[in-house]
Amino acid sequence: MNEQPWRFVYAERGKGHYDDILSVLMPGNALWACNAPLLIAVFAKKYFSDGTTNLHAWHDVGAACMSLLLQGVSLGIYGHQMGGFDREKAKLVFGNSDDYDIVSIMALGYPGEADALEEPFKTRETTPRVRRTPELFAFTSFEQL
Amino acid sequence: MNEQPWRFVYAERGKGHYDDILSVLMPGNALWACNAPLLIAVFAKKYFSDGTTNLHAWHDVGAACMSLLLQGVSLGIYGHQMGGFDREKAKLVFGNSDDYDIVSIMALGYPGEADALEEPFKTRETTPRVRRTPELFAFTSFEQL
Ligand SMILES: Cc1cc2nc3c(=O)[nH]c(=O)nc-3n(C[C@H](O)[C@H](O)[C@H](O)COP(=O)(O)O)c2cc1C
Ligand SMILES: Cc1cc2nc3c(=O)[nH]c(=O)nc-3n(C[C@H](O)[C@H](O)[C@H](O)COP(=O)(O)O)c2cc1C
Repeated sequence: MNEQPWRFVYAERGKGHYDDILSVLMPGNALWACNAPLLIAVFAKKYFSDGTTNLHAWHDVGAACMSLLLQGVSLGIYGHQMGGFDREKAKLVFGNSDDYDIVSIMALGYPGEADALEEPFKTRETTPRVRRTPELFAFTSFEQL
Repeated sequence: MNEQPWRFVYAERGKGHYDDILSVLMPGNALWACNAPLLIAVFAKKYFSDGTTNLHAWHDVGAACMSLLLQGVSLGIYGHQMGGFDREKAKLVFGNSDDYDIVSIMALGYPGEADALEEPFKTRETTPRVRRTPELFAFTSFEQL
């Protein structure tokens, strides 16, 4: 079933629903995200066209967001996904149909200079990223999980 | 919280848990997937390290699978994700810890010739793919969802 359950509501800074999207972010996120030229509210369509639940809705939205972010990088645009928003408030502010879950909020823009940032953002920006190495997530048996 | 909840159990054809992974696929998938040099069972770690539920577990697994598939393409390796497997059987056969959801099964390999395929796989392989165009999933207001 080729549902493609990803949905995006986007807004440019100072236009459309930008301030609505910004208003639901947790303060720690809103503090810097308010500088992003583009904010996107990301949704998952919960049901297949036949009305049954799409178990993979969030999974497919995650895949779509990864594609969007990578396509962005290829254009010099950097994105940042946030789960840190007030879900109850977002339901009220967005007033979206119940058929859609609010999944995340994304901030996108061209990268600036880390030196222009205040703390703690400067340190966060320049700290090397930590990723789990393959032997911690790729196994040959189920007991290793 | 940098959880990176993706987990993979992989097996090469004829080795390790290959036949176990193959055995849970729906017949229509198993029929061709049995030719894949690599099968991967994909899992999501349901909880954060502090024990709370990770709402984005499947979302992040979807993102990781997309990265894996794109990295594969850059190496000439093609992948195919499948949600079409027997979930109850998979729980028994995999016997994985309850902390992990079984998300999907992936088949990976180098592409062959469509002409070498039997029907209906030949037609399926050569049929142009349909994707929703951006105006069907990217909006400027919540009512458009
Ligand atoms: C589902 C999800 C939710 C996230 N929520 C937040 C968040 O609320 N605030 C934040 O600063 N980073 C959040 N992150 C982390 C960033 O989006 C990003 O993945 C992380 O900073 C690593 O990317 P980087 O190397 O570009 O910093 C979240 C990541 C994911 C996948
Ligand atoms: C979550 C998920 C589950 C899927 N399940 C199946 C499946 O069980 N069998 C199948 O043939 N294709 C399945 N597909 C579709 C293929 O993985 C693939 O996305 C589709 O064939 C389009 O890719 P292609 O252009 O390479 O064919 C699934 C896709 C997703 C995202």
